Amino acid sequence: MRTEVIAVGTELLLGQIANTNAQWISQRMAELGLPVYSHAVVGDNLDRVAGSFREAARRSDIIIVTGGLGPTEDDLTRDAGSMILGKPVHEHAPSMERIEAYYKKNNKTMSLNNRKQSHVFDGAFVLDNKEGMAPGQIIQQGEVTWVFLPGVPREMKALMESGVIPFLQRSFSLQSEIVSEMLHFIGIGESDLETQLQALISHQTNPTLAPLASEGEVGLRLTATGETTDEAKAKIAEMKRVVLDKVGDFYYGSDDETIESTVQRLLSRHGYRLGAAESFTGGKFIERMISLPGASAVCQGGLTTYTAEMKEQVLDIPKYLIREYGTISHECAEMMALNTQSLLHVDAAVSFTGVAGPDSSEGKEPGTVFIGLQIRDKSPEVHRFQFQGGRDQVRERAVKKGFELLFHHLKD
Amino acid sequence: MRTEVIAVGTELLLGQIANTNAQWISQRMAELGLPVYSHAVVGDNLDRVAGSFREAARRSDIIIVTGGLGPTEDDLTRDAGSMILGKPVHEHAPSMERIEAYYKKNNKTMSLNNRKQSHVFDGAFVLDNKEGMAPGQIIQQGEVTWVFLPGVPREMKALMESGVIPFLQRSFSLQSEIVSEMLHFIGIGESDLETQLQALISHQTNPTLAPLASEGEVGLRLTATGETTDEAKAKIAEMKRVVLDKVGDFYYGSDDETIESTVQRLLSRHGYRLGAAESFTGGKFIERMISLPGASAVCQGGLTTYTAEMKEQVLDIPKYLIREYGTISHECAEMMALNTQSLLHVDAAVSFTGVAGPDSSEGKEPGTVFIGLQIRDKSPEVHRFQFQGGRDQVRERAVKKGFELLFHHLKD
Repeated sequence: MRTEVIAVGTELLLGQIANTNAQWISQRMAELGLPVYSHAVVGDNLDRVAGSFREAARRSDIIIVTGGLGPTEDDLTRDAGSMILGKPVHEHAPSMERIEAYYKKNNKTMSLNNRKQSHVFDGAFVLDNKEGMAPGQIIQQGEVTWVFLPGVPREMKALMESGVIPFLQRSFSLQSEIVSEMLHFIGIGESDLETQLQALISHQTNPTLAPLASEGEVGLRLTATGETTDEAKAKIAEMKRVVLDKVGDFYYGSDDETIESTVQRLLSRHGYRLGAAESFTGGKFIERMISLPGASAVCQGGLTTYTAEMKEQVLDIPKYLIREYGTISHECAEMMALNTQSLLHVDAAVSFTGVAGPDSSEGKEPGTVFIGLQIRDKSPEVHRFQFQGGRDQVRERAVKKGFELLFHHLKD
Repeated sequence: MRTEVIAVGTELLLGQIANTNAQWISQRMAELGLPVYSHAVVGDNLDRVAGSFREAARRSDIIIVTGGLGPTEDDLTRDAGSMILGKPVHEHAPSMERIEAYYKKNNKTMSLNNRKQSHVFDGAFVLDNKEGMAPGQIIQQGEVTWVFLPGVPREMKALMESGVIPFLQRSFSLQSEIVSEMLHFIGIGESDLETQLQALISHQTNPTLAPLASEGEVGLRLTATGETTDEAKAKIAEMKRVVLDKVGDFYYGSDDETIESTVQRLLSRHGYRLGAAESFTGGKFIERMISLPGASAVCQGGLTTYTAEMKEQVLDIPKYLIREYGTISHECAEMMALNTQSLLHVDAAVSFTGVAGPDSSEGKEPGTVFIGLQIRDKSPEVHRFQFQGGRDQVRERAVKKGFELLFHHLKD
């Protein structure tokens, strides 16, 4: 069963907005077990809209069209649909009443164009649009199921949830249940993970395994089908066990868990409070923690000691240490972590000092980073890294690495 | 001249990410005078990728493909391209060297898959990828110009700017010169701006005026064409004058300028150094400043005093003040700004205290925000706001408002 999403609207082709409708529909359809095979975007031109409908009808079983149902002359989905489906349109009385009532209520004059928004194809199953003007429509034409929805995201989503999804579930009597889990790994690259899981990724069909790299992390999506949700869940659990046997050292959580929320959970479990001293990362590390609801229970705050002067004055880094070793040094990172622990009265202190670039600093090249850790009464630790990339990436990678180091300390 | 953008990647069809690459490319191509006629998204499947290439070749003159150039078995753009173009691939030596150097420098083992990333089509014009592994490629095949780019947005954008756009300008000897300028406004809403510029937006054709709202700001893109660049620039300059006559109070800069870089420039002009004390914003304000190259000249650093304890201990906010007024108060914001100025030895100090939500705090509802300002020996100022939205939006809006307040102080 092949599903395709067509978005109609020149604003998408001018890049004024991103096609987030296709993204949202794709997520919901994948969850439903009717995966989307392609997206298309076409501008407000009758021939091209009709052409894209014609092509879609050749290759897809379910075609979901968004946009082009508004009141203006540029809204051509109805006209193109009429051509391709060979069906005239007529006024849909309940929609027309809704539109008239809206204009009356808001003391606005209704133009003739607004009537157009109530037009539906003959024989269409009409979905009332409680959020706006133009109704949704579903039409079966030969083997193809057509769905027409307004382009306004709020209206589109409401019609999908209340009308389209229940219709598709009934029509395709979707029996198999789909369950998926996204496993998150840190400290291992995408190609390393793939190499270690090569055989599973290539040969497994239920569950399937799909790796997805993002900045400093790798995700692995397991997707299983079964006759019941429990059966699908059991398949996921079994495969997760096999995967974690191989690469479990790098696994930190699943689905909505992030490395920040995982660190928050571990801090809370240990009853630890966290503080940080940050130089070139500018406070990004502690800001990530504070962005989480409930942060105040585990997070005291941080010092953004960007200049040497502030490291001395606020963080009590001795002048001689900076003169002797510089601020971008093992020694400075260690002292930053130590002093943060005592000054902020925290159990776990993390420090960052380094060169974000683009220029070198203190004779150290861009990407040179020292991260210090001081946890309870353990000995302080300092790790040195050489990160690639521009200013933002170096900062981003250092922050992520800080979470990784803290995670490894706290998980044991 | 019809341009088409094809994005390859199942992650797009699962809805894991939105197709922001197509959006960005469409914007740039529209500016270039080579408007995009359609977008397509296809999954990681050889037949379907090849099928979408075949269809594109039938209808488009310029085809820009993003994604599917990575090292994994799912990366099929090279294989599909080879089939459709009828051209074998070969290793591109400079790219291979770059990849090898990366692995050597990072002490990582290079897998065989990684070699694949250096493969290019025979006869392709190769664009060095300074931001990543796989190079960009341009191939002329009959009447069609093919462009292949990595899917990582940063890499794609760099290759477009440095290689693809100059190539297209040369090849299609784009005659009319296009010049555009994006004017940035802060402190005025999109609909207010539109109302004030209504007549110009509706009737102007050269330059055109296109408003674009983003979080807490509004942009207005002026785009003019002329026989020469100078002619187009003169049209922009004249229209800019007309626009600023009407809404110049809210204008802070153009094009790549941001409110942060504008504040940095103004601080530098005054010879001021900046510091901040932040509670619920978590250090986001000062982090934005430090993310700019050259920040150390104007930015001392900041204190993320998230808890009441830290406000007392590090920022010397008296216990009685907190007991009497609470931490989310006019009084606390004022004292935070004052003490930041003296503790950090800065000319300009900004403080943030408030409730990000989701819960109320100290009897104040989510969105309640106090921003304090202490500049040189002027009297301290505190502004109270009630922001709408969730935790992230309240934090984001407060930070933006802090820059707006500072901008208005510094510009006079």
